[in-house]
Amino acid sequence: MRYRLTIEYDGTPFVGFQRQKDQISVQGEIERAAAVLNGGPVTLHAAGRTDTGVHALGQVIHFDLVKTRPINAVKNALNSLLQSAQMPVAVLDCAMVNDDFHARFSAIGREYIFRFATRRAPLTFDRNRAWSVARPLDIEAMNIAAKVLLGTHDFTTFRASRCQALSPIKTLDQLDVIATEEGAEMHVAAQSFLHNQVRSFAGALREVGIGKWSADDLRASLDAKDRSACAQVAPPQGLYLSKVIYRDTVDYSPNKIL
Amino acid sequence: MRYRLTIEYDGTPFVGFQRQKDQISVQGEIERAAAVLNGGPVTLHAAGRTDTGVHALGQVIHFDLVKTRPINAVKNALNSLLQSAQMPVAVLDCAMVNDDFHARFSAIGREYIFRFATRRAPLTFDRNRAWSVARPLDIEAMNIAAKVLLGTHDFTTFRASRCQALSPIKTLDQLDVIATEEGAEMHVAAQSFLHNQVRSFAGALREVGIGKWSADDLRASLDAKDRSACAQVAPPQGLYLSKVIYRDTVDYSPNKIL
Repeated sequence: MRYRLTIEYDGTPFVGFQRQKDQISVQGEIERAAAVLNGGPVTLHAAGRTDTGVHALGQVIHFDLVKTRPINAVKNALNSLLQSAQMPVAVLDCAMVNDDFHARFSAIGREYIFRFATRRAPLTFDRNRAWSVARPLDIEAMNIAAKVLLGTHDFTTFRASRCQALSPIKTLDQLDVIATEEGAEMHVAAQSFLHNQVRSFAGALREVGIGKWSADDLRASLDAKDRSACAQVAPPQGLYLSKVIYRDTVDYSPNKIL
Repeated sequence: MRYRLTIEYDGTPFVGFQRQKDQISVQGEIERAAAVLNGGPVTLHAAGRTDTGVHALGQVIHFDLVKTRPINAVKNALNSLLQSAQMPVAVLDCAMVNDDFHARFSAIGREYIFRFATRRAPLTFDRNRAWSVARPLDIEAMNIAAKVLLGTHDFTTFRASRCQALSPIKTLDQLDVIATEEGAEMHVAAQSFLHNQVRSFAGALREVGIGKWSADDLRASLDAKDRSACAQVAPPQGLYLSKVIYRDTVDYSPNKIL
């Protein structure tokens, strides 16, 4: 039986989502817990393999268990095992799905949030959870410039050199910046993203927010189709995989950022 | 010259506020940074010596430096040194004060916040920052019962056995419970508190919130003047020293909980 789970994690203590030998990964910890439940090894697949230090509010995974078990039993057993291991990972939702469901390949949309902290003082509670830009951001200017990136473009400028996607062309459906108590949040949505695309956007929009780049500078950066035209890539700790969208799926809304 | 500083810290990595040999304490880390600035040892005094795992949004300390330095230089140097040491401690405010100011003895009021998280799933981002009660809380019932504790009472029931205060009689000025996105926050204010008093209140109000105790049960617990009549003492990670009040002091408001 195939199970689809919505999970939340604080990425700080993990080497990243993906399983790596002798290191603590989100995948490794969930697979370890699921193996206890399954009485044998379990391999899971995720909608997005987040990098070291990147968080998730609504990551989606799937795996198969040998025996059919009630969804609440699966959820509670995994939560209990993950909590005993002191891992900041929680299963928020669990459902049984058809065998043709695939957490990565069935996804038709992904949403990320990137958090900026603007205060001058070093971060304490947000230290591993936001990018400290330590100065005011012009959110209106960021939103105006962000429109340059919307739609279908060759995003070579905003793509990590190690990105494995076949094409640099992607369609960006949403890019909004909103004011928050700590500074600002960037909300982005697309069917899929290139490696480091969201963090590259965050780095470019910071330049706009602090007045170093105009919307035209951002457009020139995009048009260059050249990685060296990218601003500083934002650090991972500000990034949250917030939601994954599937066709014919209940719109499950996980808890918002704390 | 005497300096008064308002500081914020995530208590998670610390053995507590108070300096302890070969262990990482808030006091030890700030004294280490201040000693670099001072060119010699510095001893600091704090309004409240928070326990292991307890946080602060507005702790107040004072210390003396041999040379008079601009307040921004003191603040920035300490923040820079604390950040280099990867300590989640930040100086939010710095002022020069008269020699008769004492962070502990001059304080005329202290405010604490205690955070309850009600969701069923284990905590991730709030793991070390709230008490997971994992069930709904009746906030109205908690507020009604809380009135029992207001005013001047013998708080022996709500006092740790190792409390060093001369008298168990204290005056509680405020005790409100408010609903939050994660569950609830208890806000308390008094001139001073007994050891574990706020966490003992939080434990008792949880009993009320989950329907196990009535307001009369809480009154009986107070009237017993007996530590064994206390409910489970709430864990430290939900507790935040939020504000310290002084006479003739600018009402500095630190950042709210994230």
